[in-house]
Amino acid sequence: MATRSPRQARSADKLDALRAAAGRLLIDQGPEAVTYRGVAVAAGLSPGSASYYFENRDELYAAAVEAAEEQRTAAAQARAESLDTQPRTADEVARLLIEVTYAPHVADDVVTLRLEPMLAAQRNERLRPTMAASRPRLLEALATVLTRSGHRSPGADDLDLLVQVIDAGLMYAWARGSEHVIDDATKTVARILTLIDQERQVDQERQAG
Amino acid sequence: MATRSPRQARSADKLDALRAAAGRLLIDQGPEAVTYRGVAVAAGLSPGSASYYFENRDELYAAAVEAAEEQRTAAAQARAESLDTQPRTADEVARLLIEVTYAPHVADDVVTLRLEPMLAAQRNERLRPTMAASRPRLLEALATVLTRSGHRSPGADDLDLLVQVIDAGLMYAWARGSEHVIDDATKTVARILTLIDQERQVDQERQAG
Repeated sequence: MATRSPRQARSADKLDALRAAAGRLLIDQGPEAVTYRGVAVAAGLSPGSASYYFENRDELYAAAVEAAEEQRTAAAQARAESLDTQPRTADEVARLLIEVTYAPHVADDVVTLRLEPMLAAQRNERLRPTMAASRPRLLEALATVLTRSGHRSPGADDLDLLVQVIDAGLMYAWARGSEHVIDDATKTVARILTLIDQERQVDQERQAG
Repeated sequence: MATRSPRQARSADKLDALRAAAGRLLIDQGPEAVTYRGVAVAAGLSPGSASYYFENRDELYAAAVEAAEEQRTAAAQARAESLDTQPRTADEVARLLIEVTYAPHVADDVVTLRLEPMLAAQRNERLRPTMAASRPRLLEALATVLTRSGHRSPGADDLDLLVQVIDAGLMYAWARGSEHVIDDATKTVARILTLIDQERQVDQERQAG
Protein backbone atom coordinates (compact mmCIF):
# COMPACT_ATOMS: atom_id res chain seq x y z
CA MET A 1 0.00 0.00 0.00
CA ALA A 2 1.37 3.38 -0.93
CA THR A 3 1.89 5.77 1.95
CA ARG A 4 2.02 9.52 1.57
CA SER A 5 4.49 11.89 3.13
CA PRO A 6 3.03 14.68 5.30
CA ARG A 7 3.81 17.11 2.48
CA GLN A 8 1.90 14.99 -0.04
CA ALA A 9 -0.97 14.63 2.40
CA ARG A 10 -1.20 18.37 2.89
CA SER A 11 -1.08 18.85 -0.86
CA ALA A 12 -3.90 16.31 -1.41
CA ASP A 13 -5.98 17.96 1.32
CA LYS A 14 -5.56 21.34 -0.30
CA LEU A 15 -6.55 19.94 -3.68
CA ASP A 16 -9.67 18.38 -2.13
CA ALA A 17 -10.53 21.68 -0.47
CA LEU A 18 -10.08 23.59 -3.74
CA ARG A 19 -12.22 21.12 -5.68
CA ALA A 20 -15.01 21.21 -3.12
CA ALA A 21 -14.93 25.01 -3.02
CA ALA A 22 -15.02 25.20 -6.82
CA GLY A 23 -18.09 22.94 -6.89
CA ARG A 24 -19.90 24.99 -4.25
CA LEU A 25 -19.15 28.25 -6.07
CA LEU A 26 -20.43 26.80 -9.33
CA ILE A 27 -23.69 25.67 -7.71
CA ASP A 28 -24.25 28.79 -5.62
CA GLN A 29 -23.05 31.56 -7.91
CA GLY A 30 -22.63 30.13 -11.42
CA PRO A 31 -19.70 29.71 -13.82
CA GLU A 32 -18.39 33.29 -13.52
CA ALA A 33 -17.64 32.71 -9.84
CA VAL A 34 -15.21 29.90 -10.66
CA THR A 35 -11.98 31.93 -10.77
CA TYR A 36 -8.54 31.00 -9.41
CA ARG A 37 -8.78 33.65 -6.76
CA GLY A 38 -12.41 33.04 -5.84
CA VAL A 39 -11.90 29.29 -5.47
CA ALA A 40 -8.74 29.67 -3.36
CA VAL A 41 -10.36 32.17 -1.00
CA ALA A 42 -13.53 30.05 -0.70
CA ALA A 43 -11.31 27.08 0.20
CA GLY A 44 -9.67 29.13 2.98
CA LEU A 45 -6.32 29.16 1.19
CA SER A 46 -4.11 31.98 0.01
CA PRO A 47 -5.47 33.76 -3.10
CA GLY A 48 -2.68 32.53 -5.35
CA SER A 49 -2.72 28.88 -4.31
CA ALA A 50 -5.22 27.56 -6.86
CA SER A 51 -2.94 28.31 -9.82
CA TYR A 52 -0.47 25.79 -8.37
CA TYR A 53 -2.99 22.94 -8.72
CA PHE A 54 -4.83 23.78 -11.95
CA GLU A 55 -2.84 24.43 -15.06
CA ASN A 56 -5.44 26.60 -16.77
CA ARG A 57 -9.02 27.84 -16.50
CA ASP A 58 -10.35 24.74 -18.32
CA GLU A 59 -8.74 22.46 -15.72
CA LEU A 60 -10.20 24.53 -12.91
CA TYR A 61 -13.67 24.53 -14.48
CA ALA A 62 -13.56 20.78 -15.16
CA ALA A 63 -12.75 20.23 -11.45
CA ALA A 64 -15.64 22.53 -10.50
CA VAL A 65 -18.12 20.64 -12.68
CA GLU A 66 -16.96 17.30 -11.30
CA ALA A 67 -17.27 18.45 -7.70
CA ALA A 68 -20.60 20.18 -8.34
CA GLU A 69 -22.06 17.00 -9.83
CA GLU A 70 -20.85 15.01 -6.81
CA GLN A 71 -22.38 17.55 -4.43
CA ARG A 72 -25.59 17.71 -6.42
CA THR A 73 -26.16 13.96 -6.66
CA ALA A 74 -25.24 13.44 -2.99
CA ALA A 75 -27.72 16.16 -2.00
CA ALA A 76 -30.35 14.71 -4.37
CA GLN A 77 -30.00 11.28 -2.83
CA ALA A 78 -30.07 12.64 0.73
CA ARG A 79 -33.18 14.74 -0.03
CA ALA A 80 -34.98 11.80 -1.64
CA GLU A 81 -34.12 9.44 1.19
CA SER A 82 -35.24 11.97 3.82
CA LEU A 83 -38.82 11.64 2.55
CA ASP A 84 -41.27 9.46 4.43
CA THR A 85 -43.46 7.16 2.40
CA GLN A 86 -46.93 8.62 1.93
CA PRO A 87 -49.30 9.36 -0.94
CA ARG A 88 -48.58 12.74 -2.51
CA THR A 89 -50.43 14.66 -5.21
CA ALA A 90 -48.94 15.03 -8.70
CA ASP A 91 -48.18 18.69 -7.92
CA GLU A 92 -46.36 17.80 -4.70
CA VAL A 93 -44.34 15.08 -6.41
CA ALA A 94 -43.54 17.37 -9.36
CA ARG A 95 -42.14 20.01 -7.03
CA LEU A 96 -40.07 17.43 -5.16
CA LEU A 97 -38.67 16.12 -8.45
CA ILE A 98 -37.57 19.64 -9.41
CA GLU A 99 -36.01 20.19 -5.99
CA VAL A 100 -34.16 16.89 -6.15
CA THR A 101 -32.95 17.46 -9.72
CA TYR A 102 -31.53 20.82 -8.69
CA ALA A 103 -30.41 19.86 -5.20
CA PRO A 104 -29.07 21.15 -2.88
CA HIS A 105 -31.22 24.27 -3.45
CA VAL A 106 -33.33 25.69 -6.25
CA ALA A 107 -34.84 29.13 -6.88
CA ASP A 108 -36.50 30.99 -9.75
CA ASP A 109 -33.08 31.89 -11.19
CA VAL A 110 -32.32 28.19 -11.75
CA VAL A 111 -32.27 28.51 -15.56
CA THR A 112 -29.40 30.97 -15.80
CA LEU A 113 -27.63 29.88 -12.63
CA ARG A 114 -27.68 26.13 -13.17
CA LEU A 115 -29.65 24.70 -16.08
CA GLU A 116 -27.83 26.58 -18.84
CA PRO A 117 -24.33 25.95 -17.43
CA MET A 118 -25.22 22.26 -17.04
CA LEU A 119 -26.48 22.01 -20.62
CA ALA A 120 -23.30 23.78 -21.77
CA ALA A 121 -21.25 21.23 -19.80
CA GLN A 122 -23.12 18.40 -21.50
CA ARG A 123 -22.29 19.89 -24.88
CA ASN A 124 -18.61 20.19 -24.01
CA GLU A 125 -16.80 17.04 -25.11
CA ARG A 126 -14.43 17.16 -22.19
CA LEU A 127 -17.16 17.64 -19.56
CA ARG A 128 -19.79 15.37 -21.14
CA PRO A 129 -18.49 12.14 -19.48
CA THR A 130 -18.72 13.82 -16.05
CA MET A 131 -22.33 14.84 -16.69
CA ALA A 132 -23.22 11.39 -18.06
CA ALA A 133 -21.60 9.66 -15.06
CA SER A 134 -23.78 11.48 -12.53
CA ARG A 135 -27.01 10.81 -14.44
CA PRO A 136 -27.79 7.28 -13.10
CA ARG A 137 -27.45 8.45 -9.50
CA LEU A 138 -29.74 11.40 -10.17
CA LEU A 139 -32.35 9.17 -11.85
CA GLU A 140 -32.15 6.84 -8.85
CA ALA A 141 -32.93 9.75 -6.51
CA LEU A 142 -35.93 10.68 -8.68
CA ALA A 143 -37.14 7.07 -8.60
CA THR A 144 -36.91 7.18 -4.79
CA VAL A 145 -39.11 10.31 -4.71
CA LEU A 146 -41.71 8.53 -6.86
CA THR A 147 -41.80 5.27 -4.92
CA ARG A 148 -41.95 7.12 -1.58
CA SER A 149 -44.94 9.09 -2.90
CA GLY A 150 -47.05 6.10 -3.87
CA HIS A 151 -46.11 6.17 -7.56
CA ARG A 152 -44.68 3.27 -9.44
CA SER A 153 -41.12 4.01 -10.41
CA PRO A 154 -41.12 4.40 -14.20
CA GLY A 155 -38.52 2.75 -16.43
CA ALA A 156 -35.20 4.42 -17.21
CA ASP A 157 -36.56 5.96 -20.42
CA ASP A 158 -39.48 7.60 -18.62
CA LEU A 159 -37.21 8.86 -15.84
CA ASP A 160 -35.03 10.43 -18.50
CA LEU A 161 -38.15 11.88 -20.11
CA LEU A 162 -39.15 13.36 -16.74
CA VAL A 163 -35.80 15.15 -16.44
CA GLN A 164 -36.18 16.51 -19.95
CA VAL A 165 -39.68 17.76 -19.12
CA ILE A 166 -38.41 19.34 -15.89
CA ASP A 167 -35.78 21.24 -17.87
CA ALA A 168 -38.17 22.14 -20.70
CA GLY A 169 -40.75 23.37 -18.18
CA LEU A 170 -38.20 25.55 -16.40
CA MET A 171 -36.75 26.89 -19.64
CA TYR A 172 -40.09 27.77 -21.20
CA ALA A 173 -41.38 29.45 -18.06
CA TRP A 174 -38.24 31.52 -17.91
CA ALA A 175 -38.19 32.31 -21.65
CA ARG A 176 -41.76 33.54 -21.34
CA GLY A 177 -40.70 35.97 -18.66
CA SER A 178 -42.52 34.21 -15.83
CA GLU A 179 -41.70 35.36 -12.33
CA HIS A 180 -42.72 31.96 -10.99
CA VAL A 181 -40.51 29.66 -12.96
CA ILE A 182 -40.67 26.77 -10.51
CA ASP A 183 -44.45 27.00 -10.00
CA ASP A 184 -44.98 26.99 -13.78
CA ALA A 185 -42.63 24.06 -14.38
CA THR A 186 -44.33 22.16 -11.54
CA LYS A 187 -47.60 22.21 -13.48
CA THR A 188 -45.93 20.86 -16.64
CA VAL A 189 -44.17 18.07 -14.75
CA ALA A 190 -47.37 17.20 -12.85
CA ARG A 191 -49.15 16.72 -16.17
CA ILE A 192 -46.54 14.19 -17.35
CA LEU A 193 -46.72 12.39 -14.00
CA THR A 194 -50.48 12.12 -14.35
CA LEU A 195 -50.10 10.66 -17.84
CA ILE A 196 -47.45 8.12 -16.70
CA ASP A 197 -49.56 7.21 -13.69
CA GLN A 198 -52.62 6.72 -15.84
CA GLU A 199 -50.70 4.12 -17.80
CA ARG A 200 -50.01 2.24 -14.59
CA GLN A 201 -53.73 2.21 -13.75
CA VAL A 202 -54.57 0.94 -17.22
CA ASP A 203 -52.00 -1.85 -16.87
CA GLN A 204 -53.42 -2.81 -13.49
CA GLU A 205 -57.00 -2.77 -14.74
CA ARG A 206 -56.06 -4.92 -17.73
CA GLN A 207 -54.26 -7.39 -15.50
CA ALA A 208 -57.23 -7.48 -13.13
CA GLY A 209 -59.75 -7.74 -15.99
CA MET B 1 -59.22 55.85 -48.61
CA ALA B 2 -55.59 56.86 -48.68
CA THR B 3 -53.84 56.45 -52.01
CA ARG B 4 -50.10 56.09 -52.38
CA SER B 5 -47.88 57.87 -54.84
CA PRO B 6 -45.73 55.67 -57.13
CA ARG B 7 -42.73 56.65 -55.02
CA GLN B 8 -44.43 55.49 -51.82
CA ALA B 9 -45.53 52.28 -53.49
CA ARG B 10 -41.99 51.48 -54.57
CA SER B 11 -40.76 52.24 -51.08
CA ALA B 12 -43.34 49.90 -49.49
CA ASP B 13 -42.47 47.15 -51.99
CA LYS B 14 -38.80 47.46 -51.13
CA LEU B 15 -39.54 47.28 -47.42
CA ASP B 16 -41.62 44.13 -47.96
CA ALA B 17 -38.83 42.58 -50.00
CA LEU B 18 -36.25 43.41 -47.33
CA ARG B 19 -38.43 41.97 -44.56
CA ALA B 20 -39.09 38.75 -46.44
CA ALA B 21 -35.40 38.35 -47.28
CA ALA B 22 -34.44 38.95 -43.62
CA GLY B 23 -36.88 36.24 -42.52
CA ARG B 24 -35.56 33.75 -45.06
CA LEU B 25 -31.94 34.43 -44.07
CA LEU B 26 -32.79 33.95 -40.39
CA ILE B 27 -34.49 30.61 -41.07
CA ASP B 28 -31.91 29.28 -43.55
CA GLN B 29 -28.65 30.56 -42.11
CA GLY B 30 -29.27 31.79 -38.56
CA PRO B 31 -28.96 35.16 -36.78
CA GLU B 32 -25.43 35.96 -37.99
CA ALA B 33 -26.69 36.08 -41.59
CA VAL B 34 -29.07 38.94 -40.77
CA THR B 35 -26.81 41.87 -41.72
CA TYR B 36 -27.72 45.08 -43.57
CA ARG B 37 -25.71 44.06 -46.57
CA GLY B 38 -26.80 40.40 -46.59
CA VAL B 39 -30.47 41.28 -46.35
CA ALA B 40 -30.31 43.93 -49.10
CA VAL B 41 -28.47 41.61 -51.49
CA ALA B 42 -30.85 38.72 -50.73
CA ALA B 43 -33.75 41.06 -51.50
CA GLY B 44 -32.19 41.91 -54.88
CA LEU B 45 -31.54 45.51 -53.87
CA SER B 46 -28.38 47.56 -53.71
CA PRO B 47 -26.11 46.58 -50.78
CA GLY B 48 -26.61 49.89 -48.96
CA SER B 49 -30.39 50.08 -49.27
CA ALA B 50 -31.35 48.26 -46.04
CA SER B 51 -29.82 50.95 -43.84
CA TYR B 52 -32.38 53.40 -45.26
CA TYR B 53 -35.29 51.34 -43.88
CA PHE B 54 -33.95 50.03 -40.55
CA GLU B 55 -32.52 52.49 -38.09
CA ASN B 56 -30.25 50.01 -36.33
CA ARG B 57 -29.41 46.32 -36.09
CA ASP B 58 -32.15 45.72 -33.47
CA GLU B 59 -34.78 47.08 -35.89
CA LEU B 60 -33.45 44.88 -38.65
CA TYR B 61 -33.40 41.80 -36.43
CA ALA B 62 -36.92 42.46 -35.11
CA ALA B 63 -38.16 42.63 -38.72
CA ALA B 64 -36.34 39.36 -39.47
CA VAL B 65 -37.93 37.59 -36.50
CA GLU B 66 -41.38 38.85 -37.44
CA ALA B 67 -41.03 37.75 -41.07
CA ALA B 68 -39.47 34.41 -40.08
CA GLU B 69 -42.38 33.65 -37.75
CA GLU B 70 -44.86 34.48 -40.53
CA GLN B 71 -42.99 32.26 -42.99
CA ARG B 72 -42.68 29.48 -40.45
CA THR B 73 -46.33 29.40 -39.38
CA ALA B 74 -47.53 29.69 -43.01
CA ALA B 75 -45.28 26.75 -43.96
CA ALA B 76 -46.39 24.80 -40.87
CA GLN B 77 -50.04 25.27 -41.77
CA ALA B 78 -49.46 24.38 -45.43
CA ARG B 79 -47.51 21.24 -44.46
CA ALA B 80 -50.19 20.13 -42.00
CA GLU B 81 -53.00 20.72 -44.47
CA SER B 82 -51.16 18.83 -47.21
CA LEU B 83 -51.51 15.61 -45.21
CA ASP B 84 -54.19 13.13 -46.10
CA THR B 85 -56.22 11.65 -43.26
CA GLN B 86 -54.98 8.19 -42.36
CA PRO B 87 -53.85 6.32 -39.25
CA ARG B 88 -50.16 6.93 -38.53
CA THR B 89 -47.86 5.37 -35.91
CA ALA B 90 -46.66 7.42 -32.94
CA ASP B 91 -43.19 7.58 -34.53
CA GLU B 92 -44.58 8.87 -37.82
CA VAL B 93 -46.72 11.48 -36.09
CA ALA B 94 -43.82 12.54 -33.85
CA ARG B 95 -41.61 13.17 -36.86
CA LEU B 96 -44.35 15.14 -38.60
CA LEU B 97 -44.83 17.27 -35.48
CA ILE B 98 -41.11 18.09 -35.44
CA GLU B 99 -41.15 18.93 -39.16
CA VAL B 100 -44.20 21.15 -38.77
CA THR B 101 -42.81 22.92 -35.68
CA TYR B 102 -39.64 23.73 -37.59
CA ALA B 103 -41.20 24.29 -41.01
CA PRO B 104 -40.31 25.01 -43.76
CA HIS B 105 -37.33 22.64 -43.34
CA VAL B 106 -35.54 20.95 -40.48
CA ALA B 107 -32.18 19.17 -40.20
CA ASP B 108 -29.91 17.87 -37.45
CA ASP B 109 -28.47 21.36 -36.93
CA VAL B 110 -31.90 22.64 -35.86
CA VAL B 111 -30.79 23.36 -32.27
CA THR B 112 -28.10 25.92 -33.08
CA LEU B 113 -29.69 27.17 -36.29
CA ARG B 114 -33.25 27.68 -35.08
CA LEU B 115 -34.18 26.47 -31.60
CA GLU B 116 -31.63 28.54 -29.69
CA PRO B 117 -32.28 31.75 -31.65
CA MET B 118 -36.02 31.25 -31.13
CA LEU B 119 -35.61 30.72 -27.39
CA ALA B 120 -33.40 33.82 -27.27
CA ALA B 121 -36.13 35.77 -29.11
CA GLN B 122 -38.70 34.60 -26.56
CA ARG B 123 -36.48 35.86 -23.76
CA ASN B 124 -36.06 39.24 -25.43
CA GLU B 125 -38.76 41.60 -24.16
CA ARG B 126 -39.07 43.36 -27.48
CA LEU B 127 -39.36 40.14 -29.53
CA ARG B 128 -41.45 38.14 -27.05
CA PRO B 129 -44.83 39.49 -28.30
CA THR B 130 -43.94 38.44 -31.86
CA MET B 131 -43.09 34.91 -30.69
CA ALA B 132 -46.24 34.71 -28.57
CA ALA B 133 -48.43 35.92 -31.45
CA SER B 134 -47.35 33.11 -33.77
CA ARG B 135 -47.85 30.39 -31.15
CA PRO B 136 -51.62 29.80 -31.62
CA ARG B 137 -51.22 29.31 -35.36
CA LEU B 138 -48.38 26.87 -34.79
CA LEU B 139 -50.41 24.89 -32.24
CA GLU B 140 -53.29 24.80 -34.72
CA ALA B 141 -51.00 23.27 -37.35
CA LEU B 142 -49.88 20.64 -34.82
CA ALA B 143 -53.51 19.87 -33.97
CA THR B 144 -54.18 19.37 -37.70
CA VAL B 145 -51.32 16.84 -37.91
CA LEU B 146 -52.81 14.92 -34.99
CA THR B 147 -56.41 14.85 -36.21
CA ARG B 148 -55.30 13.86 -39.74
CA SER B 149 -53.36 10.96 -38.23
CA GLY B 150 -56.23 9.43 -36.29
CA HIS B 151 -55.30 11.02 -32.96
CA ARG B 152 -57.64 13.12 -30.90
CA SER B 153 -56.44 16.70 -30.83
CA PRO B 154 -55.29 17.35 -27.27
CA GLY B 155 -56.23 20.49 -25.34
CA ALA B 156 -54.16 23.66 -25.61
CA ASP B 157 -52.11 22.74 -22.53
CA ASP B 158 -51.12 19.37 -23.96
CA LEU B 159 -50.28 20.91 -27.34
CA ASP B 160 -48.03 23.33 -25.52
CA LEU B 161 -46.52 20.43 -23.60
CA LEU B 162 -45.85 18.65 -26.90
CA VAL B 163 -43.91 21.64 -28.22
CA GLN B 164 -41.88 21.75 -25.00
CA VAL B 165 -41.11 18.04 -25.33
CA ILE B 166 -40.13 18.50 -28.99
CA ASP B 167 -37.68 21.21 -27.98
CA ALA B 168 -36.40 19.30 -24.93
CA GLY B 169 -35.92 16.17 -27.04
CA LEU B 170 -33.97 18.07 -29.70
CA MET B 171 -31.89 19.92 -27.13
CA TYR B 172 -30.96 16.86 -25.09
CA ALA B 173 -30.07 14.82 -28.17
CA TRP B 174 -27.85 17.62 -29.34
CA ALA B 175 -26.30 18.25 -25.91
CA ARG B 176 -25.43 14.55 -25.71
CA GLY B 177 -23.53 14.82 -28.95
CA SER B 178 -25.99 12.73 -30.96
CA GLU B 179 -25.53 12.76 -34.72
CA HIS B 180 -29.19 11.90 -35.17
CA VAL B 181 -30.86 14.71 -33.29
CA ILE B 182 -34.20 14.43 -35.09
CA ASP B 183 -34.38 10.63 -34.83
CA ASP B 184 -33.65 10.81 -31.09
CA ALA B 185 -36.19 13.56 -30.46
CA THR B 186 -38.76 11.60 -32.48
CA LYS B 187 -38.58 8.76 -29.94
CA THR B 188 -39.11 11.14 -27.02
CA VAL B 189 -42.08 12.84 -28.68
CA ALA B 190 -43.57 9.47 -29.69
CA ARG B 191 -43.51 8.41 -26.03
CA ILE B 192 -45.51 11.46 -24.97
CA LEU B 193 -47.97 10.90 -27.81
CA THR B 194 -48.48 7.32 -26.65
CA LEU B 195 -49.15 8.52 -23.11
CA ILE B 196 -51.63 11.18 -24.27
CA ASP B 197 -53.31 8.67 -26.58
CA GLN B 198 -53.61 6.15 -23.79
CA GLU B 199 -55.58 8.70 -21.81
CA ARG B 200 -58.02 9.01 -24.68
CA GLN B 201 -58.54 5.24 -24.70
CA VAL B 202 -59.13 5.23 -20.97
CA ASP B 203 -61.72 7.99 -21.30
CA GLN B 204 -63.47 6.10 -24.07
CA GLU B 205 -63.47 2.83 -22.12
CA ARG B 206 -64.87 4.58 -19.06
CA GLN B 207 -67.60 6.24 -21.11
CA ALA B 208 -68.40 2.91 -22.77
CA GLY B 209 -68.34 1.04 -19.45
